[in-house]
Amino acid sequence: MLRKQGGYTMIYLDNAATTKPNPEVIATINNLMNDYFINADSPYLPALTINKMQDKARQLLAANLKVKNEELIFVGSGSEANNMAIKGIAFKYLNKGKYHIITSMIEHASVYESMQQLEKLGFEVTYLMPDESGVIDNDKILAAIKDNTILISLMKINSEVGSINNLETIYQKIKAINSNIVVHCDCVQAFGKYELELQNYDLASFSAHKINGIKGSGLLYKKQGINLLPLISGGQQEFGLRAGTANYYYNIVLAKTLRLYLEKLDLRKAQENFAYIYQLLENDERIKLNSSKNNNSFFIVNFSIPGYKPEVILNYLEAKGIYIATKSACSTNVKRSRVIDALPIADINKDSAFRISFSLETTKEELTIFYNELSACLTTIVRG
Amino acid sequence: MLRKQGGYTMIYLDNAATTKPNPEVIATINNLMNDYFINADSPYLPALTINKMQDKARQLLAANLKVKNEELIFVGSGSEANNMAIKGIAFKYLNKGKYHIITSMIEHASVYESMQQLEKLGFEVTYLMPDESGVIDNDKILAAIKDNTILISLMKINSEVGSINNLETIYQKIKAINSNIVVHCDCVQAFGKYELELQNYDLASFSAHKINGIKGSGLLYKKQGINLLPLISGGQQEFGLRAGTANYYYNIVLAKTLRLYLEKLDLRKAQENFAYIYQLLENDERIKLNSSKNNNSFFIVNFSIPGYKPEVILNYLEAKGIYIATKSACSTNVKRSRVIDALPIADINKDSAFRISFSLETTKEELTIFYNELSACLTTIVRG
Repeated sequence: MLRKQGGYTMIYLDNAATTKPNPEVIATINNLMNDYFINADSPYLPALTINKMQDKARQLLAANLKVKNEELIFVGSGSEANNMAIKGIAFKYLNKGKYHIITSMIEHASVYESMQQLEKLGFEVTYLMPDESGVIDNDKILAAIKDNTILISLMKINSEVGSINNLETIYQKIKAINSNIVVHCDCVQAFGKYELELQNYDLASFSAHKINGIKGSGLLYKKQGINLLPLISGGQQEFGLRAGTANYYYNIVLAKTLRLYLEKLDLRKAQENFAYIYQLLENDERIKLNSSKNNNSFFIVNFSIPGYKPEVILNYLEAKGIYIATKSACSTNVKRSRVIDALPIADINKDSAFRISFSLETTKEELTIFYNELSACLTTIVRG
Repeated sequence: MLRKQGGYTMIYLDNAATTKPNPEVIATINNLMNDYFINADSPYLPALTINKMQDKARQLLAANLKVKNEELIFVGSGSEANNMAIKGIAFKYLNKGKYHIITSMIEHASVYESMQQLEKLGFEVTYLMPDESGVIDNDKILAAIKDNTILISLMKINSEVGSINNLETIYQKIKAINSNIVVHCDCVQAFGKYELELQNYDLASFSAHKINGIKGSGLLYKKQGINLLPLISGGQQEFGLRAGTANYYYNIVLAKTLRLYLEKLDLRKAQENFAYIYQLLENDERIKLNSSKNNNSFFIVNFSIPGYKPEVILNYLEAKGIYIATKSACSTNVKRSRVIDALPIADINKDSAFRISFSLETTKEELTIFYNELSACLTTIVRG
């Protein structure tokens, strides 16, 4: 359905919103669904077979992420992992006094809205502001810590700008100030793409569908010794932390998803693609780059085209089979992106921000076509 | 893998734990996964196509359940639906004083453990006790209501005994006492099997995998006007009540799952099967029925074999390719079933309780083989 659109081969540059599932992932899910149906918690042998497969997947993921098996919890999405991490810590402090949480203004909606909910429940939340390229300064984080701080939650790679935080480099400092502060990192956009030092976080969130996996599959890393109140209480599934009959089809395939992604990952190619399109956009005086040139994910470029209506450009490109984003796909009902709004940039740039984001299959040819069509569009359409 | 076991055709009598997915459901998911991958929240046309399919599924489910489209929320499991309903109401009252909730001692683990969590957060919870056949008396519910009661949560059909509650018949009475009391019903074991009067509940939970659907798919009914705090906060998905990139593969297929189930449903056959096996067990003096003969789900029979070790019987039957349950599959780590333990029956019966549960495909021949093998087992093995 999406291979061709209006006679054009599709050029999909919205991979930070979601990626195309690997056909091998789909085939494996299909095989599992046809071969297995027993409840993984049932007290007979076929359930054991399923549990072994699920445990094997957990083990492979743990080996890849350099953590212990029992530190990984299968969940239903990156959003669920974020909610589980944040509320799972905060709710332990409910009715026990006034407590403080540190986050930023440019987190994913699942983090931001969790914080908004916690504020209504009596927590104090500090929302740190990013610099011009979307980075949260580590000194600001340390300076924001109070006596009653219980949690710091920041993403590794920003989903709209591609900016890279380095929360992990101050983990020891945070713990030295107060060892009870829990450090959570939303690693959804970094998963599979960057080496993560999970030993320098207490909690970290991941999602399958950003790495050619399936929507409805996520993972939470929880360092041994960190205790969470479960968000979904009930049975003993996932160490008693995430109840519900296991969707083991998705859980089992996640290990393969990551392996296939890593096999295809070519960071040099990604860097070249990034530099190539960055240069083209930078040389166009109608365009203002919001992503940093030298300290950004290779998979995301954010830019503004001041004075143009984003939806007009989006429609123009869509007619050519080119798909890009104007804001995080998770908040289409919001007018201006909260994330872009928080950047210290001119208002006119905030109202015309675009995101292009790349898969492992994205080619220079596709980027060239995209840029040429964008340029033609700007020549054709009327400003304002 | 499970069609044959030890040379025997498998006789699967644990359908209350999970059912075998309909091959058409699996095929549809596979087709959807191959044809669609766009994020349903993306701001371009292919996302609209996906949303239309998802809305159509919601519409079909709503028509079947006789509710409004916007009263149905796609979630990841029945456990999630239960947690979302209970905590989504209770958390609105956090830090606002002392509030009271009514439930029973024989609810699903996802309800019971949610209540346990809420007790720790300062709520007062009344756990009503069932009668001998597992029914919660409506007069007891009404008598338990206090001035500060905010929520009543009871299941429609008990997952271990098959007993049937009639909470819906006192909905108006509850609302007359205090219109702010929210009435939630865990309808997981009733879904597809019984006509539900959802207008007489405020919230109701459903799961796909009990009706030949897929594990990891659930549904929450929320009556218009009832407000919940989201359990998974974030994007605008599911009316802002359940964040996370939509697993639309599962959501879309849920309508078809229910339709296929209802097309196959034959309540007369189910009733005949129930009466047949009930009679066989009742006539065997070694066996004590825990399920009621005349007011029970046709799909669940619970019985005790006093003096025998359940796991020995389970293993014996498994070797013959017959699968039954000794307790709710959601709590395998618990020694004696909390639900059976709450029944006012002799202790010796509590320690030897079994559940058999039927699918739409279960035949009298299978039930005959099951009973004959069980009987042979009791003759063969040593008591105690």
